[in-house]
Amino acid sequence: MVKDLLKGKNGIIFGALNDKSIAWKVAERAHEQRAGFVLSNTPVSIRMGTIDQLADKTGSTVIAADATSTDDLNNLFEQTMEIFGGKIDFILHSIGMSPNVRKGIPYTDINYPNFSKTLDISALSFHKIMQTSYHMDALKEWGSIVALSYVAAQKTLSGYNDMGDAKALLESIGRSFGYVYGRDKKVRVNTVSQSPTPTTAGSGVKGIDTLLDFSERMSPLGNATAEEAADFIVLLFSDLTRKVTMQNLYHDGGFSSMGMSNRAIEQYSKSFD
Amino acid sequence: MVKDLLKGKNGIIFGALNDKSIAWKVAERAHEQRAGFVLSNTPVSIRMGTIDQLADKTGSTVIAADATSTDDLNNLFEQTMEIFGGKIDFILHSIGMSPNVRKGIPYTDINYPNFSKTLDISALSFHKIMQTSYHMDALKEWGSIVALSYVAAQKTLSGYNDMGDAKALLESIGRSFGYVYGRDKKVRVNTVSQSPTPTTAGSGVKGIDTLLDFSERMSPLGNATAEEAADFIVLLFSDLTRKVTMQNLYHDGGFSSMGMSNRAIEQYSKSFD
Amino acid sequence: MVKDLLKGKNGIIFGALNDKSIAWKVAERAHEQRAGFVLSNTPVSIRMGTIDQLADKTGSTVIAADATSTDDLNNLFEQTMEIFGGKIDFILHSIGMSPNVRKGIPYTDINYPNFSKTLDISALSFHKIMQTSYHMDALKEWGSIVALSYVAAQKTLSGYNDMGDAKALLESIGRSFGYVYGRDKKVRVNTVSQSPTPTTAGSGVKGIDTLLDFSERMSPLGNATAEEAADFIVLLFSDLTRKVTMQNLYHDGGFSSMGMSNRAIEQYSKSFD
Amino acid sequence: MVKDLLKGKNGIIFGALNDKSIAWKVAERAHEQRAGFVLSNTPVSIRMGTIDQLADKTGSTVIAADATSTDDLNNLFEQTMEIFGGKIDFILHSIGMSPNVRKGIPYTDINYPNFSKTLDISALSFHKIMQTSYHMDALKEWGSIVALSYVAAQKTLSGYNDMGDAKALLESIGRSFGYVYGRDKKVRVNTVSQSPTPTTAGSGVKGIDTLLDFSERMSPLGNATAEEAADFIVLLFSDLTRKVTMQNLYHDGGFSSMGMSNRAIEQYSKSFD
Repeated sequence: MVKDLLKGKNGIIFGALNDKSIAWKVAERAHEQRAGFVLSNTPVSIRMGTIDQLADKTGSTVIAADATSTDDLNNLFEQTMEIFGGKIDFILHSIGMSPNVRKGIPYTDINYPNFSKTLDISALSFHKIMQTSYHMDALKEWGSIVALSYVAAQKTLSGYNDMGDAKALLESIGRSFGYVYGRDKKVRVNTVSQSPTPTTAGSGVKGIDTLLDFSERMSPLGNATAEEAADFIVLLFSDLTRKVTMQNLYHDGGFSSMGMSNRAIEQYSKSFD
Repeated sequence: MVKDLLKGKNGIIFGALNDKSIAWKVAERAHEQRAGFVLSNTPVSIRMGTIDQLADKTGSTVIAADATSTDDLNNLFEQTMEIFGGKIDFILHSIGMSPNVRKGIPYTDINYPNFSKTLDISALSFHKIMQTSYHMDALKEWGSIVALSYVAAQKTLSGYNDMGDAKALLESIGRSFGYVYGRDKKVRVNTVSQSPTPTTAGSGVKGIDTLLDFSERMSPLGNATAEEAADFIVLLFSDLTRKVTMQNLYHDGGFSSMGMSNRAIEQYSKSFD
Repeated sequence: MVKDLLKGKNGIIFGALNDKSIAWKVAERAHEQRAGFVLSNTPVSIRMGTIDQLADKTGSTVIAADATSTDDLNNLFEQTMEIFGGKIDFILHSIGMSPNVRKGIPYTDINYPNFSKTLDISALSFHKIMQTSYHMDALKEWGSIVALSYVAAQKTLSGYNDMGDAKALLESIGRSFGYVYGRDKKVRVNTVSQSPTPTTAGSGVKGIDTLLDFSERMSPLGNATAEEAADFIVLLFSDLTRKVTMQNLYHDGGFSSMGMSNRAIEQYSKSFD
Repeated sequence: MVKDLLKGKNGIIFGALNDKSIAWKVAERAHEQRAGFVLSNTPVSIRMGTIDQLADKTGSTVIAADATSTDDLNNLFEQTMEIFGGKIDFILHSIGMSPNVRKGIPYTDINYPNFSKTLDISALSFHKIMQTSYHMDALKEWGSIVALSYVAAQKTLSGYNDMGDAKALLESIGRSFGYVYGRDKKVRVNTVSQSPTPTTAGSGVKGIDTLLDFSERMSPLGNATAEEAADFIVLLFSDLTRKVTMQNLYHDGGFSSMGMSNRAIEQYSKSFD
């Protein structure tokens, strides 16, 4: 097995709640590949989850921050740069939440303060993180920033509600900031569009089990797991992907390029028996 | 010349400021094709522009409404349905504004209340209009809703700032609401991605003249004008496009499918002389 | 109902076999809208189908031509220009055939002479038609060319075989020729990506009924019919779409923008009962 | 620097002509990462180029094969499996040639036997390679196949001629075969859309220097080099990208997501001085 992919690199990983989180798996893989990192999440998520176990296991520090607060972010980057004695190399944004989804409010009855909250938490936070790091000059040249997305940004999924819109906005912010961050500081910015993953966050979506089954049968290689996503994201932090930027990269076993698979249509046809 | 494309149809046209506005041209064409409509804009835009002339010319009523206010929208739809004695057939959303662009604040210094305002005015207003009309059951079956967009939703343009993100969100809202509105009420929702157009709104973008020239030379048929956009939008309101929905339709002389044209590269090569 | 959309316009319609064909419906609608046209198909298809009835009904002439033969195409354009006393305004390409699909040869056992035949008939014929008309200067300024495509060009559908590749090539040829035809002669070129349609050609695909059902439930407005496709295509021939070029336009009830609908997932979930 | 990314893996690399070739760089990087491989090219290219030097340097065998000949491919795979004592892990397809481009024949004067040759060499060869390996069961589970592409598959570039169409077909074949190869053998198939690269093949395109300059200024990270492409492709052969399939991955410094950059528009504006 490869080692040292991230040797000498340091970063910040946002969004590890518990051992089902993709961010958790990224932290484990990054640690295996010799990266150092700070783990960050909101105070509430830190209390509700088990991030301290991850910090222990990976020898990393947890710093609480609400990624919608530029004050918190300033503080987080300052502390992080202190810990690592200077600029860092990578950032993972794995943050998303919709009060409308949580409360089961349909897309046609949307509560607009909720909608704004969805966008602020799930998309604007990505801009805030980048703007903060840009102004503090917190990333080295050829640094790498990744946010997690989902195919709902391109294709409407019943029940995914305003999170589809938030992911579309997230991906656009990745492109827009990717342009200026690349031009000015040689930092790259990408989003990874991952298979539906049975994390704590994902489990809030209604009918998720049937959707996971459909997605599994549609994807020639099956759904990508959180561990596999972590493998891929670690590569995006490495020096071997320096010229990939402003992209939305599908990590989904092929789902995004399928119109209809044999396995899915055969299952579907059973519904008429 | 064709007549009667919209005979018997009524609608609401948002966003006509003056005779350079695309919404103004749509109103003129819709009138020629025998549609009835209400013109709506914010009180400020009504004062600053010349919408009353358009109302006179087309025999239509002006109703002030801030499209970010659901109260205003409720009132607007109520009055409109009273004027036309029932449900309407089409809506045009031609609304967009970024305080960050107006004030020349770069994308890396964004003011977040401004960003939220950009999104609220330019994108969430589209959801609010549709949610209001959905709940009031204001549109007939096979009604048609169109919003104006720009290629900045897919490709980053220096200087277009947070409006690129707003257009990405707008298009996503079009898809998301298009799904439920189609499923529940047979109403279609599309966005039209128009060539850069020298309207009052467009003229705020820095270096717009050079961009217009580049776009003109890249597009095999040249930039599409506001009048041509109006022709196309009227078709989307007609009964001949009933099964087109959840689409972003490029009306741009071919620009969106070009990598490099002869005319643009020849002009570009002169820059080295 | 609108009339005169194509008044004074003449064209060529390729691919009407019988009254299930999309090209047949386009001919009927174009006739209603006062267009004149020549109907063309291969000698075999003319014998097997009922195109003469269509010619009678619409007062048009049938001219046999194999669209893969530039000699036949030269002859066809010459005769057509003689009939109409000069240049024409529109062309419909509704031609596609895969010997591999017909003979049930799987994509992993493809016969390469067959593959080349699929590409030649279904895609290169489009280039040949345009190159012939370009050199004979057979189209007026602002003329319009349309070819029928399918979402298999972007998304793989089990069983659609090498026709998916042929459609991808067809759409690319539309863009490539659209650039030069637009630049040099102001002629526009587009493809229409239509819902699966139970035509004679479409019925060769295995499991087409289940696919049609899935597509129907996924599309918020249901599958688009051949008649509705004809309405839309007639608009693309009219003067109201002059600046739309090099596009692939989805006419599919919303299918192409759906990830998962309520109706489809509910049906799918029944398969586990 | 990372080592051992491809330790224990063997493959075939098609298309190394000389030390400017992307395939050449891939061979060097794959060798550094401990892969074994066979180098293959046509007899003519072997004579004209310097592939033997590369074979010496990397301890690999050169086997001549015309990738449009299934007989040659059968022989190549047989010999390769003999050399490595069994199944292999990866394949690189870096093959493309257009007689129309070579001879300066414009897209509107295309010679159809030439066009078929372009498609056969540049796209159908990819299917032939995969069909041959599929039937010989030459790839291990979780094997990886990559072909090189270019953005001309999506966007028309003046002068790129029928190679744009060939790349569109190549990418479609990647998706179509990617579905069945993934489903049946857990092998993944992707295309890499690389910046314009001053290779021997690329240098045939007219006005390539100006295009390279424009592309450089448009891309926030500049054009990706052949060496950087090799880094990226090696990752796609590694075990860390197992669930990425049926994708077209842009490796282009951000070009594909740009509408207009500061640097490019400033240069362009100088053309008016």
